[in-house]
Amino acid sequence: MIYKSDEKRMQDKIDTISEYGATGNGGITRYSLSEADLLARGEFVKRMKAIGAEIKTDDMGNIYATLKGSDPTLPAIATGSHSDSVKNGGNYDGILGVMAAMEVLDTIVAENIPHKHDITAMIWTNEEGSLYPPAMMSSGVVMNEYLPEEIAKNFRHENMLNSKSVIDPSKTFKEALEASGYKGDVKNRLNPKDYKAMFELHIEQGPILEAENKDIGVVNCVLGMINYRIKIYGVSDHAGTTPMKYRHDALYGAAKVLQYLHDELDKLDENLVYTTGEILCHPNVHTVIPDYVEFSIDSRHEDPKVIEQVVKVIENIPKEIVGCTTGYDVAWTRDTVYFDETLIEYVQDSVNELGYSNQRINSGAGHDAQFVSYMIPTTMIFVPSKDGHSHCEPEYTSTKQCTQGVSVLLNAILKCDAE
Amino acid sequence: MIYKSDEKRMQDKIDTISEYGATGNGGITRYSLSEADLLARGEFVKRMKAIGAEIKTDDMGNIYATLKGSDPTLPAIATGSHSDSVKNGGNYDGILGVMAAMEVLDTIVAENIPHKHDITAMIWTNEEGSLYPPAMMSSGVVMNEYLPEEIAKNFRHENMLNSKSVIDPSKTFKEALEASGYKGDVKNRLNPKDYKAMFELHIEQGPILEAENKDIGVVNCVLGMINYRIKIYGVSDHAGTTPMKYRHDALYGAAKVLQYLHDELDKLDENLVYTTGEILCHPNVHTVIPDYVEFSIDSRHEDPKVIEQVVKVIENIPKEIVGCTTGYDVAWTRDTVYFDETLIEYVQDSVNELGYSNQRINSGAGHDAQFVSYMIPTTMIFVPSKDGHSHCEPEYTSTKQCTQGVSVLLNAILKCDAE
Repeated sequence: MIYKSDEKRMQDKIDTISEYGATGNGGITRYSLSEADLLARGEFVKRMKAIGAEIKTDDMGNIYATLKGSDPTLPAIATGSHSDSVKNGGNYDGILGVMAAMEVLDTIVAENIPHKHDITAMIWTNEEGSLYPPAMMSSGVVMNEYLPEEIAKNFRHENMLNSKSVIDPSKTFKEALEASGYKGDVKNRLNPKDYKAMFELHIEQGPILEAENKDIGVVNCVLGMINYRIKIYGVSDHAGTTPMKYRHDALYGAAKVLQYLHDELDKLDENLVYTTGEILCHPNVHTVIPDYVEFSIDSRHEDPKVIEQVVKVIENIPKEIVGCTTGYDVAWTRDTVYFDETLIEYVQDSVNELGYSNQRINSGAGHDAQFVSYMIPTTMIFVPSKDGHSHCEPEYTSTKQCTQGVSVLLNAILKCDAE
Repeated sequence: MIYKSDEKRMQDKIDTISEYGATGNGGITRYSLSEADLLARGEFVKRMKAIGAEIKTDDMGNIYATLKGSDPTLPAIATGSHSDSVKNGGNYDGILGVMAAMEVLDTIVAENIPHKHDITAMIWTNEEGSLYPPAMMSSGVVMNEYLPEEIAKNFRHENMLNSKSVIDPSKTFKEALEASGYKGDVKNRLNPKDYKAMFELHIEQGPILEAENKDIGVVNCVLGMINYRIKIYGVSDHAGTTPMKYRHDALYGAAKVLQYLHDELDKLDENLVYTTGEILCHPNVHTVIPDYVEFSIDSRHEDPKVIEQVVKVIENIPKEIVGCTTGYDVAWTRDTVYFDETLIEYVQDSVNELGYSNQRINSGAGHDAQFVSYMIPTTMIFVPSKDGHSHCEPEYTSTKQCTQGVSVLLNAILKCDAE
């Protein structure tokens, strides 16, 4: 038996929730636990209550809306994502997974679909970390004891509560959480006794599915990544009075190192991605030769062997370049997180049965699902991102594409329920 | 007759004034009209009064300390520089020219040297513009009607008074000036009726004299310069999800353009200098491919034909590079300002008679003297900068070198007095 979700119901959800935090330019700014986020959460709770779901929240403000299954002895199957956005973000990143969870429950109720397990639609609090860093805060706290220590240490509960607002550092996440009305009991947290699996539907945030003309991405893993800081040390001198031959220009050194990295990394695997997104230049005054430049390099690949080669390239950056010395620090690294093979199969079988074009794909971005996967079987489903854009107002996925994603999600959950 | 200034007196001046605004690391922070600057100004006034000089100030707080000459019908000969510094600056930039002016007057009094013209030691207010931008504020105001319009417009009196403190924007230069006690009469401004010439002694702020083992730089001109903003437009996408072939990375584009500029500009005249000191990257987040990068390029050369070639190179920056488009804006330009031939000759003759090693040199940096030269005959004298450093705490010129510079200044002024 194959089910399909309803495009009109999805359109109504998208239209309604896109209003909460709307910038007026087609996108939203909906920081976690902001007024706009409370409106989106309220809509979720109202609609889920209306179809008979039971609402709980945990001590991080994560919301769980559960449709009871026929066998109360079985654990629940969860699905959801986050309702918050970056500044001037779009109407799909995160919230699509929440609307999809709602639509799964709506469809189950509307079509009276039998299920043994409880089915839980979720909102994860503060995935973006835009107002209260870091990103993936709540899943980092809830899954803390299951995470590798070097990741876990960045998500200690007390530290997260004390996270300061980037706009007004006198305000903490704890205060926002307590004022929100969504702070619940620690006992309600997602846990391996009460939950069998979690699924997350998300936009791809990249151009691959669109370019390959595919409806659905069956996600294998979240790519391993490294983040290094490259440092170039020069000498600061006056721009007008220092002949070229006497210079130690750290910014020119940085341009040379950046070119070296492109030259060497382009020789590695064609699926490797690497990015220098951030650069700091000191003193950054137009009349002064820079004495210090630092830039980030973020690189991601499924295969740890390729990542090792990237590290080699970084280690082999010339120690001296255009009269400057160089160095680097490891900011952080994470291993590739593979999703659960059985759940991936449920997703693949559902796509095949629905007849949607599809391909296997890896997630380059981090998601709550990646942390959840350390605790219980987890997987993700991607739908295309127009022009590959995300974290910006032009972010777009058609309602048809969104609904196709929900239908895959629904049937995968029902396959999981059947086992 | 050739005179020499006194090294011990110079040492005493350097030791005393270096205390005003001392950072404790060998340098000073002495913003114009700050408490530290008022101490330095007070020392100047006290010492100049003590040798019988008459003190006046103008409406910009510039100080004039005048030793009367034997012929009251003749205009004065001025010499001086500025007492303010950049943040964490050194003990010589600017203030050496003030101490030199004091030492010239001290020597004239101590040795009872006859002179027909009044000799005026000066402090120019706010040359660095570190607290209240722009640099060379007071000379820009006093010489305003003599400057080329496109320079003059940046130094209108009312706008300068309203310049806001970069530390506390609620405070203006006007308020600091009025509180200082140094605001005087507009009639006291340097002017072409009452002044015959101005000389300024300054550290080189570059490595040439030291490298060439020369005591004195006889300055020809302040180099013409251009300041452009180079702009690279890319597309912002997620660092983890966008394959390399789909990218339009504005920072990589900027590195390519920077390399192009080095390649092409290095083919031009060997005395050309060019600098990218400032870079802005948007959004400058390590997980986001930059969509916009802008950087400065400052280039200086005596010969306008060479500067024209530089502009050609900038105009020929590839319009497309690594999938990005490029553009540029002119921030500002200035022509080469040649100093007065007759005054340069007085300086050259004085150096020769004193037997100091010397060479002709151009000033790459801007100075008050460059603005004064639009109004009355003006020139400069350079002494070596250790390791070429300036605008930093290690800035150093030995007291012997400083005093040699003062002796050249003194004799050049006396030659000017004799004509």
